Amino acid sequence: MFLVKSIDETIRLLKDNFNNYDLQTKMIELDNALNYVCAEDVISNEEVPHFNRSIVDGYAVDFNSVKLATSSTPSILRLKGQVLMGRNATDLVTKSTTIYVPTGGHLPSGANAAVMIENTELLGDEVIINKSVSINENVLLKGSDISKDSVIIAKNKVITPLVIGALKSIGIRKIKVFEKLTALVISTGDEIVKNKVSLSIGEIRDINTYTVSNHLKNKNMTISESLIINDDFEEYKNAVLRGFETSDIVFTSGGSSVGDKDYTLAILKDIGAEILVHGINIKPGKPTIIAKYNNKLFFGLPGQPTSAFIVLNVFANEIINAIYNIEDVLPIPYFEARLDSNIHSSTGRRMYQLVKISYFNNEYIATPLFAKSGMINSLKEASGYIIVDEFSEGYLSDSIVKVYRLGD
Amino acid sequence: MFLVKSIDETIRLLKDNFNNYDLQTKMIELDNALNYVCAEDVISNEEVPHFNRSIVDGYAVDFNSVKLATSSTPSILRLKGQVLMGRNATDLVTKSTTIYVPTGGHLPSGANAAVMIENTELLGDEVIINKSVSINENVLLKGSDISKDSVIIAKNKVITPLVIGALKSIGIRKIKVFEKLTALVISTGDEIVKNKVSLSIGEIRDINTYTVSNHLKNKNMTISESLIINDDFEEYKNAVLRGFETSDIVFTSGGSSVGDKDYTLAILKDIGAEILVHGINIKPGKPTIIAKYNNKLFFGLPGQPTSAFIVLNVFANEIINAIYNIEDVLPIPYFEARLDSNIHSSTGRRMYQLVKISYFNNEYIATPLFAKSGMINSLKEASGYIIVDEFSEGYLSDSIVKVYRLGD
Repeated sequence: MFLVKSIDETIRLLKDNFNNYDLQTKMIELDNALNYVCAEDVISNEEVPHFNRSIVDGYAVDFNSVKLATSSTPSILRLKGQVLMGRNATDLVTKSTTIYVPTGGHLPSGANAAVMIENTELLGDEVIINKSVSINENVLLKGSDISKDSVIIAKNKVITPLVIGALKSIGIRKIKVFEKLTALVISTGDEIVKNKVSLSIGEIRDINTYTVSNHLKNKNMTISESLIINDDFEEYKNAVLRGFETSDIVFTSGGSSVGDKDYTLAILKDIGAEILVHGINIKPGKPTIIAKYNNKLFFGLPGQPTSAFIVLNVFANEIINAIYNIEDVLPIPYFEARLDSNIHSSTGRRMYQLVKISYFNNEYIATPLFAKSGMINSLKEASGYIIVDEFSEGYLSDSIVKVYRLGD
Repeated sequence: MFLVKSIDETIRLLKDNFNNYDLQTKMIELDNALNYVCAEDVISNEEVPHFNRSIVDGYAVDFNSVKLATSSTPSILRLKGQVLMGRNATDLVTKSTTIYVPTGGHLPSGANAAVMIENTELLGDEVIINKSVSINENVLLKGSDISKDSVIIAKNKVITPLVIGALKSIGIRKIKVFEKLTALVISTGDEIVKNKVSLSIGEIRDINTYTVSNHLKNKNMTISESLIINDDFEEYKNAVLRGFETSDIVFTSGGSSVGDKDYTLAILKDIGAEILVHGINIKPGKPTIIAKYNNKLFFGLPGQPTSAFIVLNVFANEIINAIYNIEDVLPIPYFEARLDSNIHSSTGRRMYQLVKISYFNNEYIATPLFAKSGMINSLKEASGYIIVDEFSEGYLSDSIVKVYRLGD
């Protein structure tokens, strides 16, 4: 009774089921707001610039007084002085006079354009203007960059370096943001141990809580707890319930054996969670379980480190965008590389093939990492992956393929 | 006397001049090591797995005892028991016996292969084996993933989630890393103010220390200090000298006026810095100054927010890779979008055109952001850029173009 879904169906289910999260907000200093998601529209109380500003080094003029100026029939204006950077221009430009104004300086009253210094000559206190300008030429008018009451950043947008710059330009110091998403991360399996000095035969050290937690940290999540659960129904169930109490999302990774998976499913059924996905048409990573409990997301990754990491890479952004209602998302970018071996696919599932990238003879080479199930050492060499569509049989060695970066 | 360089020459100068930084190291918990650069080769003291491990649910066998098995002529073995996950298999497999072993379980002594449960039937205490296996089939041999004395991560490699997973698999808890790079960030200009409640005519609020600092934070740098310097030679010089005392890199952004730039150059000459680049063949962003002082990098960005941010985007990764001696760098990935206006270039400089991305009619649309010099409001809508090569005249509206993400 697998509820096997395609990757696209899974993404749609994430969007449809988790866009109504109960998100906490807080006011924070804008200086600390990088990569948070904005929790309210920020409206400008100021105009930028808040004075007419020259965008060239040159002479502030009334455009009418130089409208016939050419190099053979220049206009001549008397120089009255200069505007200092950062200062109010107190003197007045008239039809027969001009004032020097630097780039970014205040355009004096009476002036409605600036002539670039390159188009002028200075002779004593006379400025020869060799070129006409149109009205407002070389001027950034008051409020033309940011007007009062304009929305500088809307709710549900990510606070980027440029957004911080724009908010600082109107004097914003604090901003209301959604709290970072918190995740409780569980690795399950009787064989898995953590922080043990010396292993007994049969035991292996945990990998998945580390790869999963650190990927989530890179996606701006906070890890509330990271646990190893040996296969004990009650212990596992209590950990999942605690996760739903303390955290926004519960991530688990189970062993790939049927027994382990039934465990996860049994617990979800026992607590009354709604199973949305049980099996995804992805390779590796089919045994993935997604459920909803008290409006929160349970994401059950496969147990194999490679499978778990690929599934997390494919869905982490989708989860975050769904929960925060982030729109206008960019596609995942790629670069091209030459494949150095055949990649064969015949499963009818969308295949994610990890590759190592090297640079040789002026081109990037993609080497597929074929590792036996559960191996970590070659996995860590992977910096990207290639996607083989469910309807494709793969790629031949020497093809140029699209490589996506892990983590993007 | 501009030392104008191409972008490629500038990158080469960064690599050649700053690969010998005096970097501090520290031992930290691996749990906190994400995105640090490793400062020593980490050698494994353990084998992974540290026992022969089945990679299927099935029966541990001596492959010799089932080498003739087919579904019509099966081999029959007596079931002696099962291996528990995480436990040492104490019982012995012989030519006539088998032991059940789960995926990831310890392969008992006497066995050298595992038969998948799908290829067997269980009748009482007899296991009917319907398929032969070769030696070591379905087994991960002791040490085959990670052998003793192998290098798990080399010096000068970035510590990724997968690297942490691999290091945790061999029980590593602490790691020697290079300290994060520290930067002192200065905005210069008489008109620039910070944290002022109400602006006087002629003043504008600082943008560049925020866009620059936050971009550097996203690149894992620490900002030691963020300063506004009004155009005062001594104050500026002292700030730069203090930056070289306290920080790894000094970033400044000056006004675009000739006067401002001379100031930066005059200070660098005054303190005896070596000017490497004065002008880059990039648009926008030509007035960029790069210098070397006491083996450290001075990076003088243009004053316009757009220009400063583009130049920083183009060179930040190059700076980091040069200083940390990071090799095997991936190319910057891109995605394709349809351009909705013409982009014209005639400068002979490599042009970086900021674009806003939207999604319409099943395709991504790139809208060039043409803003007057110094404007921040449209800049903050940019999520990517298009590169127009120095030898190209641009792109026509409706072309499919490569878009690179800001920040990548």
